[in-house]
Amino acid sequence: VSAENMDKPHMVTCTAPVNIAVIKYWGKRNEELILPINSSLSVTLHQDQLKTTTTVATSRSFEEDRIWLNGKEEDISHPRIQSCLREIRRLARKRRNDGDPGLDSATLSHKVHICSVNNFPTAAGLASSAAGFACLVYTLARVFGVEGELSVIARQGSGSACRSMYGGFVQWIMGLQDDGKDSLAQQVEPETHWPELRILVLVASAARKSVGSTSGMQTSVQSSCLLKHRADSVVSGRMVEMIEAVRKKDFPAFAELTMKDSNQFHATCLDTYPPIFYLNSVSQQVINLVHRYNQHYGETRVAYSFDAGPNAVIFTLQKHVSEFVQVVQHFFPPETNGEDFFKGLAVNRVSLSDELKQGIGLEPMPKGINYIISTKAGPGPCVVKDPTQHLLTSDGLPKKTV
Amino acid sequence: VSAENMDKPHMVTCTAPVNIAVIKYWGKRNEELILPINSSLSVTLHQDQLKTTTTVATSRSFEEDRIWLNGKEEDISHPRIQSCLREIRRLARKRRNDGDPGLDSATLSHKVHICSVNNFPTAAGLASSAAGFACLVYTLARVFGVEGELSVIARQGSGSACRSMYGGFVQWIMGLQDDGKDSLAQQVEPETHWPELRILVLVASAARKSVGSTSGMQTSVQSSCLLKHRADSVVSGRMVEMIEAVRKKDFPAFAELTMKDSNQFHATCLDTYPPIFYLNSVSQQVINLVHRYNQHYGETRVAYSFDAGPNAVIFTLQKHVSEFVQVVQHFFPPETNGEDFFKGLAVNRVSLSDELKQGIGLEPMPKGINYIISTKAGPGPCVVKDPTQHLLTSDGLPKKTV
Repeated sequence: VSAENMDKPHMVTCTAPVNIAVIKYWGKRNEELILPINSSLSVTLHQDQLKTTTTVATSRSFEEDRIWLNGKEEDISHPRIQSCLREIRRLARKRRNDGDPGLDSATLSHKVHICSVNNFPTAAGLASSAAGFACLVYTLARVFGVEGELSVIARQGSGSACRSMYGGFVQWIMGLQDDGKDSLAQQVEPETHWPELRILVLVASAARKSVGSTSGMQTSVQSSCLLKHRADSVVSGRMVEMIEAVRKKDFPAFAELTMKDSNQFHATCLDTYPPIFYLNSVSQQVINLVHRYNQHYGETRVAYSFDAGPNAVIFTLQKHVSEFVQVVQHFFPPETNGEDFFKGLAVNRVSLSDELKQGIGLEPMPKGINYIISTKAGPGPCVVKDPTQHLLTSDGLPKKTV
Repeated sequence: VSAENMDKPHMVTCTAPVNIAVIKYWGKRNEELILPINSSLSVTLHQDQLKTTTTVATSRSFEEDRIWLNGKEEDISHPRIQSCLREIRRLARKRRNDGDPGLDSATLSHKVHICSVNNFPTAAGLASSAAGFACLVYTLARVFGVEGELSVIARQGSGSACRSMYGGFVQWIMGLQDDGKDSLAQQVEPETHWPELRILVLVASAARKSVGSTSGMQTSVQSSCLLKHRADSVVSGRMVEMIEAVRKKDFPAFAELTMKDSNQFHATCLDTYPPIFYLNSVSQQVINLVHRYNQHYGETRVAYSFDAGPNAVIFTLQKHVSEFVQVVQHFFPPETNGEDFFKGLAVNRVSLSDELKQGIGLEPMPKGINYIISTKAGPGPCVVKDPTQHLLTSDGLPKKTV
């Protein structure tokens, strides 16, 4: 190994997905370790539409750990980033001490440069921290040659990040131990399990930023007796029901439980003191629209779920996507009917019957929704093999295009 | 008694108040008897601002029972009206059979004409059925010479009507018996107890009619596990706390519990499937405004409560009314700054400091609130002695002015 090669950074680039919980996580029993008060279950969204890409480089020439997020250098001393770095390095040391021959011993003492970008605007309000921390942990693990249970580390970056460590349908088992070692993610079914399932993200028109989820869930845990009841007595039964619905691909059961759990999460936000509102008038109208659409057909064809913001995530089956997307466009007429309204997987254009429009019978809400991203369940984090895709130059600094 | 006098109707006119619950009633365990799943507590509003007036006439010349509500004849066969008529006549028969000498035996066999009006627009969305049924039962009782526990009868007209049978601070004890005889209202403190307490009704701009409370609470009882938990495990403790706060005139304790209980009620509506939304964007903004106002002063000066609609009921103390009303006008600028915006008890005009406006820091929401009714706690139902105030003519038909 020449001196030149010794200075050239060791570099790995990976991508990781966003996930959307259908049994919601809200509330920690341990703030530092990020241990939740209840288990949760999510669907991993496909990275063709929504993903984080992260490059991690190590070099003996780097003088300090550094991080760039979406083109801007950020403070690496952020406690949650430090938790992930510390835990990965601890595992790497453990492997070296256990005598793993494949481990590059020098790398462990090197500083890292981290560069991360999302392929979707942060302003879209699509909880990007889950994809971000999953990608960070997955990439660091590859760089340091660490294998095994990584979701417990991702969890310490951002709770829901542990679920982004797997594709398809993923549960985060709350665990019982004080040290959090049993609070981890497990794949329930892979992304290939339910190919008919489709997901639409309805990006609501920019609203003021509401209460952040970290401080919001703290206030909820402190003040909402309904949240305590939910965590203690409701969620465990719902986890069993949801896993069964997913396994059986029982759309009506999956859809109804998804809607009920989203509503119950927002109910506990309203029971928080002072109350937290994440659903605005557009969200309420999407909820009304979904129920009226289902009622019109006398079956549950579509479900909604809302996280800590006004955007709706819609679940439906492939055969209903075209019509429902048209329904959304009809009741939330966009500024222009251009193609900008539809992003992601191609959707056929259909026309709506007057009977359906009248059956729904809501007052259209112009410009309530900015655009729709059409996607589906997708795989977990991946390594990007093409070296031209690295986000850092051989000097270990972000490429200009980032 | 001459034949002419025999035909002249026996006529009584009474008034009854609206009440606003601070521990909310939502959900019945018996639909027909109107037995609630939890106790509740309310403040009776003063009749100078909001009241129902009812005249009941009996005459041997009337051929059938008839009823006019707000100038329009309605179907007397409505089950809840029939419940009240039946129960009052049963009590009257019981008294006659028990040999009460003061009872006009003839009256019992006569038909009744009932005429009822509110001094506030129904469109204001101020649960008028409580005042209406309280007034009906109170007036019928006077006509038939019935005394004693009338709140159990008013309860069978409209649950919350039982609380309008008393002035001041009133609890509706849920009771345990299947026949409902122990599900009744009791005065906790009279209206004179807390003279500094002031109440503002913020009438939100007319929204579409949402789910009615009767069917809404049915759906909630069937589908919301959070409502069940609230009724089984939360409300009884809150009743004790609320009665203590009222007895001690502890405004911060009263105010915080009032807000928490309103929020919890609306949380159970959101946990209902399909979910019920009574709070619109104006309601959410009033809630934000109240919390920011209290936060600005570092003490709880103002509280909100919302029933099954978007109107806010504000509780505060006399010394804060002028400023808070001005704050509402500032953040919900009315169409014109005319006097039409302020109704009820006179409110001094003050000017707001820039510090306060900036401290609250909300975006004003023009025309969000139509008007404010300023009122206070008031007495229970009263007899109107002035015969010119009867709503029926000596023929037993509504006066033209009704």
